[in-house]
Amino acid sequence: MIGSNPAIWKVNPSIRGVVAELLSSANPGNPVISLGPGDPAAYPHLFSKGREAFTEAVASAVSSRLYDSYPPPFGLPSARRATAAYLRGVVKSCGNSREHPVQLRESDVFLTVGATQALQAVLTILASAGGNILLPRPGFPLYESSCELAGLDRRYYDLLPARNWEADPTQIRYVADARTLAIVVINPNNPTGAVFSSHHLLQIAEIARDFSIPIIADEVYGGMVFGGGRFVPMASFAHLAPIITIGSLSKRWMVPGWRFGWLAICDRHGTLQGVRKATEILMNLNPGPASVIQAAVPSILSDANAEFHENVLAVLEPCMNTLFEGLKKIKALRCHSRPKGSMFMMVEVDTTLLHGIESDMDFAKQLMKEESVLVLPGSIFGMKNWIRLFFGLPADLSIDACDRMNSFCERRMIRDGW
Amino acid sequence: MIGSNPAIWKVNPSIRGVVAELLSSANPGNPVISLGPGDPAAYPHLFSKGREAFTEAVASAVSSRLYDSYPPPFGLPSARRATAAYLRGVVKSCGNSREHPVQLRESDVFLTVGATQALQAVLTILASAGGNILLPRPGFPLYESSCELAGLDRRYYDLLPARNWEADPTQIRYVADARTLAIVVINPNNPTGAVFSSHHLLQIAEIARDFSIPIIADEVYGGMVFGGGRFVPMASFAHLAPIITIGSLSKRWMVPGWRFGWLAICDRHGTLQGVRKATEILMNLNPGPASVIQAAVPSILSDANAEFHENVLAVLEPCMNTLFEGLKKIKALRCHSRPKGSMFMMVEVDTTLLHGIESDMDFAKQLMKEESVLVLPGSIFGMKNWIRLFFGLPADLSIDACDRMNSFCERRMIRDGW
Repeated sequence: MIGSNPAIWKVNPSIRGVVAELLSSANPGNPVISLGPGDPAAYPHLFSKGREAFTEAVASAVSSRLYDSYPPPFGLPSARRATAAYLRGVVKSCGNSREHPVQLRESDVFLTVGATQALQAVLTILASAGGNILLPRPGFPLYESSCELAGLDRRYYDLLPARNWEADPTQIRYVADARTLAIVVINPNNPTGAVFSSHHLLQIAEIARDFSIPIIADEVYGGMVFGGGRFVPMASFAHLAPIITIGSLSKRWMVPGWRFGWLAICDRHGTLQGVRKATEILMNLNPGPASVIQAAVPSILSDANAEFHENVLAVLEPCMNTLFEGLKKIKALRCHSRPKGSMFMMVEVDTTLLHGIESDMDFAKQLMKEESVLVLPGSIFGMKNWIRLFFGLPADLSIDACDRMNSFCERRMIRDGW
Repeated sequence: MIGSNPAIWKVNPSIRGVVAELLSSANPGNPVISLGPGDPAAYPHLFSKGREAFTEAVASAVSSRLYDSYPPPFGLPSARRATAAYLRGVVKSCGNSREHPVQLRESDVFLTVGATQALQAVLTILASAGGNILLPRPGFPLYESSCELAGLDRRYYDLLPARNWEADPTQIRYVADARTLAIVVINPNNPTGAVFSSHHLLQIAEIARDFSIPIIADEVYGGMVFGGGRFVPMASFAHLAPIITIGSLSKRWMVPGWRFGWLAICDRHGTLQGVRKATEILMNLNPGPASVIQAAVPSILSDANAEFHENVLAVLEPCMNTLFEGLKKIKALRCHSRPKGSMFMMVEVDTTLLHGIESDMDFAKQLMKEESVLVLPGSIFGMKNWIRLFFGLPADLSIDACDRMNSFCERRMIRDGW
């Protein structure tokens, strides 16, 4: 037998891997309701109007035959410019930037194969022997596996359900040390549905400033905020610490299959010059997103699509509320706070109430087997005995899913006398 | 200043980086003729007919809106199936497989973001501390940098101009050792234009068999063969050693901007089971090619496009001949053998004849400055005092380029009495 890289065998199970495993035990007679992966393109009720403009922009780029050549290594200039302008606009519109206007130019933006390539690149670029990265817990498993492959240690700060999933700044300072290379902040948050306050982001930026390290701002769900939440991009605090922003078209524009993302370096004080040069070297080696998608980006990111985004949120929020209310009725589950953004929420499972369920993985497996409902075990996000739920389903499916989960829990409820 | 990964700083200059550097010294008054990167999409004379079918297939996949979701981690089943069928067909048509019919199924094929991601993935998967990879010299710089990033040592076997750029099997056996993890074979060859004989490939497969290691068969130029050459895919020898084939749409289908490639594991004796599992883990983490491109692949790879490929070769061969004949007249340059495939040739520069030219890099820089002709210095491919030339230019541009190179060399020719 021929060997292979031991680091690969150490990576945590990917979401895709766990989903495949869970689906393999589904009952073929009972169609699956998925509260698992967040693939917005699979839910046409979320984007009834306006998305055809994105499709037309790509189809027209393809048909023009002007974009069949290799794109430039960091991306088509028009797409980099449009992404920089979009990101500047988001900072400006959140109103936090009057004192410290954000400086983001074409040359600060690198186009990537989804946010996945962006985060893999950032972690590869920052890696150094013995260095560590501060990750939120619960977090996103791809950070774990990418750190493992890049040879980076991980330290964790907790997102606290009792604080609307914000972190304790004292804990962040406590877990950081001289070998900490960056803090990862995911906002709007996957998997919790939290949207961090401007004050909380400022606290984190101050920590990064004090440790002289950058913040990796995962804003894949940037702008997907409702219920009184307000999205403040981390780059609003670039006067305090350098910010490396990661984003993509996958969620807000609902085209994850197009694999288009970005990495933007907001480095007010020039402390990331080495990192920027290393990014250029690495992106010269890495393949980027398809040029025909890049060519459509200026049109896709344009303000002309504001109504599309408003419509999505107007549909998404009631979907979330339906699921949230439905879950409240299930005794063994506990929703700590109503999501304010992204497409996910974390729900606590009281396994002590459930016969034969020892863990979140048991819960997910048995629920799939008996009720054909797909939920993701919280342990893959770093929280045992929680589950992560996608809340973007149409109301009738959410109600059906809650009914099935309720039946499942009721059947297994440990009652007096058992 | 915030630090970055030291491995990134050790990578060799990329082709993209060198091209950018050379172009920066171009004389704006004199339009550049590029014999540098091989971007076939930039040369419409190569594909006057038939490529519109590829465009239509992608435009139709985009417009259908059926492919906006995340594609499955290893690729759309239809595209994996079509790629497996295509690769089986290529082996079958070369006629070497009667005794040992090739077994390649959908599950053996992983779809990648161009061949670049495929080769980065393979090297990451095989990497182990202290392990080495056998690379051809001259080679392709991306292998160097990918090995550096994966922490792999390199050993080299020479492609010999005097043997039509085939290697000496004795040398390959000599440089391989117990820590050798794989042999890379690039056929049809970039940068030399060689097409290896079936006998030579058999010799290499026997070496891989004797060392119990796989062959990484880079067949990005598979099928791009003329002048009596015959393309024999390495998988024809899968009965001797496991073959990991890398390919892409970029060259033969002339759509490098679409970033679609593949990695196919041909493992007759099951010795790559661990490698296959590691590939599955890694490809579960990596982003793949855009789903709208994947969806078009069954149509793009179909036999219906045979005429397109024939037409390309019918245009490419005379282009190559024009350049080859033009170069012969330049005293300081020496073409050892006429290319039989790919889109590149290596040409020796006799710097001893040229005033003020100490190296291939000097040659490339001064030629750009004085004559606005872009050629790539051989040292980035591992051969000092050679240059690599793209031979797909239209005849008039090739003639112009040769005239300019001739003027350049004549001006610098060291004559008696100097």
